[in-house]
Amino acid sequence: LILLDSLLQEIIMTKLARFTEFSRKIVAVGRNYSEHAAELGNAVPTKPLLFMKPPSAMITAGQQIEIPLGCVEIHHEIELGVIISKQCKRVDKDSAMDYVGGYCLALDMTARDFQNEAKAKGHPWAMAKMFDTSLPVSPFIPLQSVPDPHNVSLWCKVNGETRQMGNTKDMIFNLPTLISFISQYFTLEEGDMILTGTPSGVGPVKHGDVITGGIPGVMEISFDVVQRS
Amino acid sequence: LILLDSLLQEIIMTKLARFTEFSRKIVAVGRNYSEHAAELGNAVPTKPLLFMKPPSAMITAGQQIEIPLGCVEIHHEIELGVIISKQCKRVDKDSAMDYVGGYCLALDMTARDFQNEAKAKGHPWAMAKMFDTSLPVSPFIPLQSVPDPHNVSLWCKVNGETRQMGNTKDMIFNLPTLISFISQYFTLEEGDMILTGTPSGVGPVKHGDVITGGIPGVMEISFDVVQRS
Ligand SMILES: [Mg+2]
Ligand SMILES: [Mg+2]
Ligand SMILES: [Mg+2]
Repeated sequence: LILLDSLLQEIIMTKLARFTEFSRKIVAVGRNYSEHAAELGNAVPTKPLLFMKPPSAMITAGQQIEIPLGCVEIHHEIELGVIISKQCKRVDKDSAMDYVGGYCLALDMTARDFQNEAKAKGHPWAMAKMFDTSLPVSPFIPLQSVPDPHNVSLWCKVNGETRQMGNTKDMIFNLPTLISFISQYFTLEEGDMILTGTPSGVGPVKHGDVITGGIPGVMEISFDVVQRS
Repeated sequence: LILLDSLLQEIIMTKLARFTEFSRKIVAVGRNYSEHAAELGNAVPTKPLLFMKPPSAMITAGQQIEIPLGCVEIHHEIELGVIISKQCKRVDKDSAMDYVGGYCLALDMTARDFQNEAKAKGHPWAMAKMFDTSLPVSPFIPLQSVPDPHNVSLWCKVNGETRQMGNTKDMIFNLPTLISFISQYFTLEEGDMILTGTPSGVGPVKHGDVITGGIPGVMEISFDVVQRS
C-alpha cells in the first residue's frame, strides 16, 4: 500500500512538473509584504488583494521577457508560486495545504505605467499584468525541496546587482489563508498557480537587462529583457 | 482536395464545440456600446478597455449562477462571444477574421458593488468579474449560423421581462479591431473566447430569478440565479 501510494505521488508529480502546459489560471496576490506595499505608496490590505494572469503570460527558460507595446516602465517582482495539485473549492485553512502540489519561482512582470494609469482611472489591470511574457517561471519545485513554505528566502538581481532580498515569513497572508480565501470565489484546479506577492525592492528594467532570481540551494532563474520588436 | 478541406473543417468544429473543456483564457471588452457606457456613467473609450475571466468562471446549461459571498448587487450583461480557432498573435485587422472559429451567447455576470469598490480604490476587477459561475455560456454556434457578426440581435430577459435588446452593429470596436488590438498584447489560442461587450439595459438580479437570453433564430439560453449557500 505504501508502494502504491508513493507510485501515485510520483505520477501526480510527473504531471504537475508540466504545469505550464495545462494550467488554466494564475491567481496573484498584490501587496502581500508590507514593505512592498509601502514602497509603492499603497495601504497594507485587510484582505487579500487579488488579480489574475492567463496561462499565455507564462514563459520558461530560454524565452525572453518582451516589454509590451507602449510600455515605458516595466518592473520585476520576484515571487514564490504555489502549484495546485487537485480541484480546490471553498476549503478551510486547516485543509488548504492538502491542495499544494509543489512550487515554482516566478517573476510577476508589471507594466507599472499601465498599472498607474489603470489605478488612476479605475480601470482593470489586464494591460499591466496579463501581457505575453509577463510571467517567467522556473521549473517545478517538488514539495520536499520546500519543507517550510513560510520560511523561503527569495532574491532578485538585475545585471548581477541585488534588487530584492526577502523571505516568505514576511507575507501578510500565509498560504492557508490565501488558498482558503481564493477558493471561496475561484475554484482552483490541478496545475493552477497562486503567485504569493513580492517583497520590497521592485524596480524598472530595460532592453538588454538580465534578471536573475533564486531560492538559495533550491532554484535559480535567468531571463533577458528585450524591447518588443 | 475540397473533400479533405471540408473534413478538416468538420474536425476543427467538432473540437471547438467543446471549447469550455479546454479554453484557457477569456478576454472581455468593457464599454463597447456607447449607450451602455453612458448608463453606468462611464466615458466612451478611445481604445478597447480589456479585462479577463478565467475558464473556471464558465457554466453551461443546467448549472446555476451563484451570487458570490458578500455581493449584494449582481448584474446581467448579455454578450456575443467569439471563439478563436487557432493561435493568433499580433495579427492585422485584414486577417483577424481568419482566426474566428465560431461564436457563443454569453452572460458577463458582474458583481457591480465589488466593481464600484474596485473602481473607486484603483483595485483590479478580479472579485467583480472572475468569480465562479460569472460566465454562463451557450453551446457553440458555428460560423454559418452567424453570416454577419456585425449584425446580430441580442436580447436578455429577467423572469420573462425584457431588459436588454441590442445589436452588434452598435459595437464601438468591431471584431477585426478587437482581435487585432488584443493580439498585440495577449496571444489568443484555440478555444479562447472574446466577450465583445454588452448593449444597454444591464441591471440587478436576485435569488430565484431566471435570466434568459437569445439571438433570434439562432440560440436561446436560460440560467437560474441562486444565493450562494
Ligand atoms: Mg506581484
Ligand atoms: Mg483586473
Ligand atoms: Mg461585459
